[in-house]
Amino acid sequence: MNVTVGGRTQHFRTVTFDAQNNTVRLIEQRRLPHEFKIVATKDFHETTQAIKDMVVRGAGAIGATAAYGLTQGARAFRGNDLKKFAAHSETVFKTLGTARPTAVDPVNAMHQVLFAMAEGGTVAEKQALALAAAEEFANEDVRHCEAIGRHGAKLIRSGMKILTHCNAGWLAFVDVGTATAPMYAAQAQGKQYHVFCDETRPRSQGATLTAWELAQQGISHQIIADNAAGHLMQRGEIDLVFVGSDRVLGRTGEVANKIGTYTKAVLAARHNIPFYVAIPLSTIDWQMKRGLDIPIEERHEDEVLGAWGMISNLKAESRKQKESRRAYVRVANPTSGARNPSFDVTPADLITGIITPAGIIKPAELMKRKKALGRW
Amino acid sequence: MNVTVGGRTQHFRTVTFDAQNNTVRLIEQRRLPHEFKIVATKDFHETTQAIKDMVVRGAGAIGATAAYGLTQGARAFRGNDLKKFAAHSETVFKTLGTARPTAVDPVNAMHQVLFAMAEGGTVAEKQALALAAAEEFANEDVRHCEAIGRHGAKLIRSGMKILTHCNAGWLAFVDVGTATAPMYAAQAQGKQYHVFCDETRPRSQGATLTAWELAQQGISHQIIADNAAGHLMQRGEIDLVFVGSDRVLGRTGEVANKIGTYTKAVLAARHNIPFYVAIPLSTIDWQMKRGLDIPIEERHEDEVLGAWGMISNLKAESRKQKESRRAYVRVANPTSGARNPSFDVTPADLITGIITPAGIIKPAELMKRKKALGRW
Repeated sequence: MNVTVGGRTQHFRTVTFDAQNNTVRLIEQRRLPHEFKIVATKDFHETTQAIKDMVVRGAGAIGATAAYGLTQGARAFRGNDLKKFAAHSETVFKTLGTARPTAVDPVNAMHQVLFAMAEGGTVAEKQALALAAAEEFANEDVRHCEAIGRHGAKLIRSGMKILTHCNAGWLAFVDVGTATAPMYAAQAQGKQYHVFCDETRPRSQGATLTAWELAQQGISHQIIADNAAGHLMQRGEIDLVFVGSDRVLGRTGEVANKIGTYTKAVLAARHNIPFYVAIPLSTIDWQMKRGLDIPIEERHEDEVLGAWGMISNLKAESRKQKESRRAYVRVANPTSGARNPSFDVTPADLITGIITPAGIIKPAELMKRKKALGRW
Repeated sequence: MNVTVGGRTQHFRTVTFDAQNNTVRLIEQRRLPHEFKIVATKDFHETTQAIKDMVVRGAGAIGATAAYGLTQGARAFRGNDLKKFAAHSETVFKTLGTARPTAVDPVNAMHQVLFAMAEGGTVAEKQALALAAAEEFANEDVRHCEAIGRHGAKLIRSGMKILTHCNAGWLAFVDVGTATAPMYAAQAQGKQYHVFCDETRPRSQGATLTAWELAQQGISHQIIADNAAGHLMQRGEIDLVFVGSDRVLGRTGEVANKIGTYTKAVLAARHNIPFYVAIPLSTIDWQMKRGLDIPIEERHEDEVLGAWGMISNLKAESRKQKESRRAYVRVANPTSGARNPSFDVTPADLITGIITPAGIIKPAELMKRKKALGRW
């Protein structure tokens, strides 16, 4: 999507591949929203580390990064020995596979590259096929998000106020995103609306990433404390809710997403506000039988006990030196601990619809449409 | 309540009066939880400023501070001229009255002091009566909170997990507090339980003040992101909710309290978790006809866009210099704005009971019991 740097607006993808220099180019997401920077990883080890270190995050984005990383590794191989090349490729695959062990996307993406490489008869052919497959993975990710946008944009009317939680934006995918896709598509159709971004404590992805995306795209928006959505709904100030998901259970329609999603769904249901979950089809888990079995990661308590940001002198105009250094501040009582469940599970009856590239589907009807979705 | 400073545990009230030095002694709440400090205001101007600057906050605490401040001003008068004394007292009353113009507590508290002074025949008598009345106001505030504690403690059983939002603790009153009163009383009865403190963004009073109070009192607790309560309720990890209130409508049973309270009430109702609001009787508004008319303060967006805390190096052990300076960090995207409604209104049907010094009352029954409560 668009990013304006130094007064100049350019189109960027979250992840791209520089074939000439054999580097993976990533938006350095840990610097956002305070600095926009592209990093280029020079070999597959650096690419692995970038996934590990959260330079890049989000299902689609880390999938594409792994696909490009495998391609990068394969293309760095010198020589014609197919056996040595196969052993080398396996090392690259395994190394990248360790970067985010709980995520399924990098492995699935790399499988596509491996299958494509298998069709080549020489190292050079395999290297070329790897690149084409990785590019196709990234392009497909974008096309799927665009399809989500087309379906979801129909739900947006001018004048609406939309709530979103966390970041399921283009930074989490190769481009366009899922929960944001309908917003971007509606904007392209000339619709005018306003977005409330839940700040999404404790990691504040709404206040940092989603707000940054919307600001760059020129979409009217405001950040709110996670506590404020209920009040705004009560006063009729929210018409529609869009969120993403980390896992949707095909059998039950339950949706796992960032902590606080369930709360927003309960509030939306109370106020008869439509609540939509936007996902690529790869997010559907057809195996798991109940949401209670979805493992809920408990992250470090420091996330809850403080906040990361830029040290800022609120009265800086009157001072000579204005600080601008990133720091962690401990907000909480220093002798208290925290609980930090990072995800929650929303039951199907609170969800109006699942916006997929194949259309909007009621959560209870996912299973019925499994075969059709598999062929999509 | 108890505070441990330098290894020594002492009992403190939020506000006390030092008759010998004619100073009002206040816990400097802006330094908490990172530093415990008592400030002594040396005249009624300084006392007024302390209320203005939020050194002291909370209904009961600012009421007592104003009562003591009026006493302080009256006692500073030199001479026997009753007319001059009356004019002086009026100046003191008016000055203190400007400190927090929207709050009713300081004015009500000072009225009690003025009525008492009226019974004295000399300046010296009036000064003595003022001191006695201010002390009685503070003592009554404590007795009422203790009564809330006695009634509320019956709701707590050992093993329970209790959720609380924001700070309606002893720091907001002269001592004991309201939402915390049942916890302190249950602790005195030997009951063992665990408290989850909502961090309560954007001002984080739960993570700072409530967590500090519970830690000082040795009560098992953890801070959670405001987003986490719904998930914990869903998993059966919350048995009871206690909150305070800024205004309870006697006619409708609606409860105005810190933003996010309504959300927790909606979640509690969905999970059949008892939701109690603890208040002194002075919090009941018998006039207002509907919650929609309660003005909802919209505070500065900087509260939502960032956070205050101590700059902290999370890997400080390995570094020579450990920073410990209070700072504001800008968390959010710098080109985004925020909405910051600070209170919300919870309807009566979501509230299990109002815990008052006169007993636990169903919100719909407040009006029926108005006369009895007035005599309490």
